[in-house]
Amino acid sequence: MKMLEEKIAKDGIVIGSDILKVDSFLNHQMDVALFEEMGKEWKRLFASKPINKILTIEASGIGIACLVAREFHCPVVFAKKSKSRNVGNDVYSAQVFSFTHGNTNDIIVSKKYLGPEDHLLLIDDFLANGEALRGLISVADQAGATVEGIGIAIEKAFQNGGKEIRAMGYQVESLARIAAMNEKDGISFTD
Amino acid sequence: MKMLEEKIAKDGIVIGSDILKVDSFLNHQMDVALFEEMGKEWKRLFASKPINKILTIEASGIGIACLVAREFHCPVVFAKKSKSRNVGNDVYSAQVFSFTHGNTNDIIVSKKYLGPEDHLLLIDDFLANGEALRGLISVADQAGATVEGIGIAIEKAFQNGGKEIRAMGYQVESLARIAAMNEKDGISFTD
Repeated sequence: MKMLEEKIAKDGIVIGSDILKVDSFLNHQMDVALFEEMGKEWKRLFASKPINKILTIEASGIGIACLVAREFHCPVVFAKKSKSRNVGNDVYSAQVFSFTHGNTNDIIVSKKYLGPEDHLLLIDDFLANGEALRGLISVADQAGATVEGIGIAIEKAFQNGGKEIRAMGYQVESLARIAAMNEKDGISFTD
Repeated sequence: MKMLEEKIAKDGIVIGSDILKVDSFLNHQMDVALFEEMGKEWKRLFASKPINKILTIEASGIGIACLVAREFHCPVVFAKKSKSRNVGNDVYSAQVFSFTHGNTNDIIVSKKYLGPEDHLLLIDDFLANGEALRGLISVADQAGATVEGIGIAIEKAFQNGGKEIRAMGYQVESLARIAAMNEKDGISFTD
């Protein structure tokens, strides 16, 4: 998506060869007009799918997911990060390892808000190793829900998550796919 | 706001005389169409104010704030909850005590995204004791920003936060104000 790639090229900050800071428009300050355009793009890409719910993960996914949900005329459910190991049996849960923070979180979703009747679009801001996404897929599977598609804002295509999750059979639509990046040369996108 | 009060009366769950669970539509599953109407209502209520940024707090405030921002054609900034005591000097920070969880969190906002040029609408899902809101006001003050108004989805008007923050001179617009509630009699709203 041209608009998002241009925004990343203009306002993203590369640190080393692995970290891309986009907190000026994506995950601290949020450019809601951009999110709306992203929502329209995913609506176009998943037009044939019977999506009736958006599933995302706190906190960075929520804003994007809400503008997506507006296009699909459906609710959002966000998975909560739980510090407690004792998550109870009224929730679906999965463990998510964070390479950024070097720790493992449980993510939880109430059983009341996901079930076999749900046809989900999963939304997240970043896809790198795919850990968070695997957690969301696990939660959807536990609920007997159908994952109709996956929408990612920025995929680090030089890491393995996207390849692996596509190999599992999911339609993953990343609006910007970074082929390589470093401080000196900046960011290059896949074709 | 009639639409929100009706939703609370229909789907809210009162536990004891103090806890109102609205996670079916407000802060776990999210009714984005409702958020859009709430955004329109705050736009009407704050029409005369030169608002150029929405400030909220993760995670429950983010979804509502994004639909509000759409009405005001401006970005959202969300304060992050930080576990670390060592928040650094590139952020504004405030301590927020949570009566629900019985602990204190630091909330932080990058200095890059708030400044004297900002005219803020603060948005949050609940107002009870006003602790989170006082944290956001502190962050705004540290930045030299102007708080033009405060939009709350649900105010527990039987607690003191709303009264105290209005006494500080802020225009607080709560779309549903609960006068009293308990499991037996349900919920009554202020007139």
